[in-house]
Amino acid sequence: MSTHIPLGFELSGVHCGVKQDADMEDLVLVVCRGGAVAVGAYTTNLICAAPVELDRRRTPTNDARVLVINSGNANACTGDQGDQDARRMGQLAATAIGGEEHQALVMSTGVIGESLPMEKIAAGIADAAGQLGDNADALAKAARGMMTTDKVPKVASREFVLSGNSVRILGMAKGAGMIGPKMATMLAVVMTDACLVPDDAQTLLKNAVDVTFNCISVEGHMSTNDTVLLLASGNATDQPLAGEDLSQFSAALERVCLDLARAIPADGEGATHLIAIDVSGCETDGDAFQIAKTIADSPLVKTAVTGCDPNWGRIVSAAGYAGVLFDPRQVSLSLVGTLLYKNGTPVTFDATSVSAEMRTRFEIDVVLRVGAGPGKCRFFTSDLTTEYIHINADYHT
Amino acid sequence: MSTHIPLGFELSGVHCGVKQDADMEDLVLVVCRGGAVAVGAYTTNLICAAPVELDRRRTPTNDARVLVINSGNANACTGDQGDQDARRMGQLAATAIGGEEHQALVMSTGVIGESLPMEKIAAGIADAAGQLGDNADALAKAARGMMTTDKVPKVASREFVLSGNSVRILGMAKGAGMIGPKMATMLAVVMTDACLVPDDAQTLLKNAVDVTFNCISVEGHMSTNDTVLLLASGNATDQPLAGEDLSQFSAALERVCLDLARAIPADGEGATHLIAIDVSGCETDGDAFQIAKTIADSPLVKTAVTGCDPNWGRIVSAAGYAGVLFDPRQVSLSLVGTLLYKNGTPVTFDATSVSAEMRTRFEIDVVLRVGAGPGKCRFFTSDLTTEYIHINADYHT
Repeated sequence: MSTHIPLGFELSGVHCGVKQDADMEDLVLVVCRGGAVAVGAYTTNLICAAPVELDRRRTPTNDARVLVINSGNANACTGDQGDQDARRMGQLAATAIGGEEHQALVMSTGVIGESLPMEKIAAGIADAAGQLGDNADALAKAARGMMTTDKVPKVASREFVLSGNSVRILGMAKGAGMIGPKMATMLAVVMTDACLVPDDAQTLLKNAVDVTFNCISVEGHMSTNDTVLLLASGNATDQPLAGEDLSQFSAALERVCLDLARAIPADGEGATHLIAIDVSGCETDGDAFQIAKTIADSPLVKTAVTGCDPNWGRIVSAAGYAGVLFDPRQVSLSLVGTLLYKNGTPVTFDATSVSAEMRTRFEIDVVLRVGAGPGKCRFFTSDLTTEYIHINADYHT
Repeated sequence: MSTHIPLGFELSGVHCGVKQDADMEDLVLVVCRGGAVAVGAYTTNLICAAPVELDRRRTPTNDARVLVINSGNANACTGDQGDQDARRMGQLAATAIGGEEHQALVMSTGVIGESLPMEKIAAGIADAAGQLGDNADALAKAARGMMTTDKVPKVASREFVLSGNSVRILGMAKGAGMIGPKMATMLAVVMTDACLVPDDAQTLLKNAVDVTFNCISVEGHMSTNDTVLLLASGNATDQPLAGEDLSQFSAALERVCLDLARAIPADGEGATHLIAIDVSGCETDGDAFQIAKTIADSPLVKTAVTGCDPNWGRIVSAAGYAGVLFDPRQVSLSLVGTLLYKNGTPVTFDATSVSAEMRTRFEIDVVLRVGAGPGKCRFFTSDLTTEYIHINADYHT
């Protein structure tokens, strides 16, 4: 796990009792005492959680001091009580680090429809405020504190030099279930010590999210709580980034977001394969996204991959109902490097050896070309297993 | 099983070897020697099978003499060879009953991407032509001959009197997997001895399909082969139906289609519950459909029902990402008759007893109100089980 915590940030993660397992952290603080530029990307679900509404009102800002996160309870569909609890949670976190209420941001993830246990949250915030640090241990606890059904914590980072200054980007995310596209997709916090003006930060985050967090799914169910926050302390550079530095930063931010985004379906509930879907030859990138998403969301495509079955008919037929116009006679498909369908006609291939190849791989490449246009998309999803059913028929989210 | 075969029709079903199991019929003939009015509703998938393209060209017609159906092979994504095979299949069926090529319609269902075994098909057509009948045994064999992963054959009928004439409607359908909405959904043949002009027949079929076959799903994957055909022999009435008779017929046709449509998710692959989703209070029926479909297609909603978990948060949050605007504070939800969420706020309820109630029922009612508008929709889907995963990770469609 990376230990390049960007300058100006301190982290902590503690167990306060929202989750039953006493070994699992469930309350996280991310503190920037000097004040960070903060921008967000949020779920587009009409039914959104109280903390999402709060953060949406408070960003963009150039003076975020603390982010408080709890897992185990989403504070979603909780009515007026939920709004009060989210505000109170931010207020407690701000007070704990000597800040003001409007300088706090809030994230929650877990069960929908139950009110937050505010006594536990309050005790957890006090505890976490006393354990802030900028070392690997603090980061590990913070990353674990965001998890719900995740099997592994998700952290990604980059360190690079801009105009002579060393700059760091560090992100942490949670995923695993209720992961669908066209939104911020889950909880992720990306910290940097680069100096950014809020408008640039918002643009960079939107651009990065569009091609990373918005291009993944597990089962395609859009959550009520999805939030990606970018926090920029400015401690590593004197002036706001501009020109070539801003471009380089943008590319690095996209790579960090991609690492985090890819890690989510790779750790999707019950997943035995990561499916990487490349669609090209469309008129627009939006068309390619729509086709890739439709393939990714098909339970028949997912279960074919689960069974290591080179069942290209399910993939091609999913493309056909994506709502995008193309010529079926220009469609070609490769699976784990083998051409199976060319210009609308099946290619003779050795199904046994392609299936064997699928068995040896964790990442299954699906490459679909539907024409000669410039539009393309790369999308990641999980396969669908009996374990996913067990998790979601038994676990109350 | 109903034996009210409409006047003018003969049926047969035989095993010709497309399916491996020698006990399963896989080739079906539906014959109307006097010529039937025939209209169709077809998949809207761009990647559609050769028989769909053939039927689309040949309907509406007022002189269909024979419909030939095979199961076990979809003749989809089979290139030019597939088009030739579909034409040849129709030609053989027409010849076998003394008709002409343009009087034949064709349906196929099963594995995608493999060419039809035309020698077996030809032998099967000859065999089936010698076994035509209008009795219960012929109907049973024909209904079984359409099945793929279906556990039970699906037949529905109505008999009623219009202006002194007894009129029959009889439908048979197959379903089980690759069932998604906004299309004809699967294979279904509806026969009647009422006399209809092609334009009326087309309108009646479209209206019936919109609120029946287009309001069901299993996993939401739209097939390449979905076709509903309405065949009207005219043997029971002298003149084409009009006025009140046509309205009564339309209502009866809708009921037959609804019986068949409902039977498909009830026999969905691996299904342990049928989920009936009623959405109301929308501005339009189309909005209500969109919300109902989004709820139906969510694997999280399906697995909650599998686990008999009254997890209303998954249902409400799915409504929120359906792409339809509504006020979250006007949303109310009942599950198996218990109010769980009222005007955007959770209702205290006994989860154990609601779960127990879900365990006793096969059909799970979900009733969602999102406002005060007139738009509504009733949608049926299956739950999602480990058995669905086993079927689709192992069965090559």
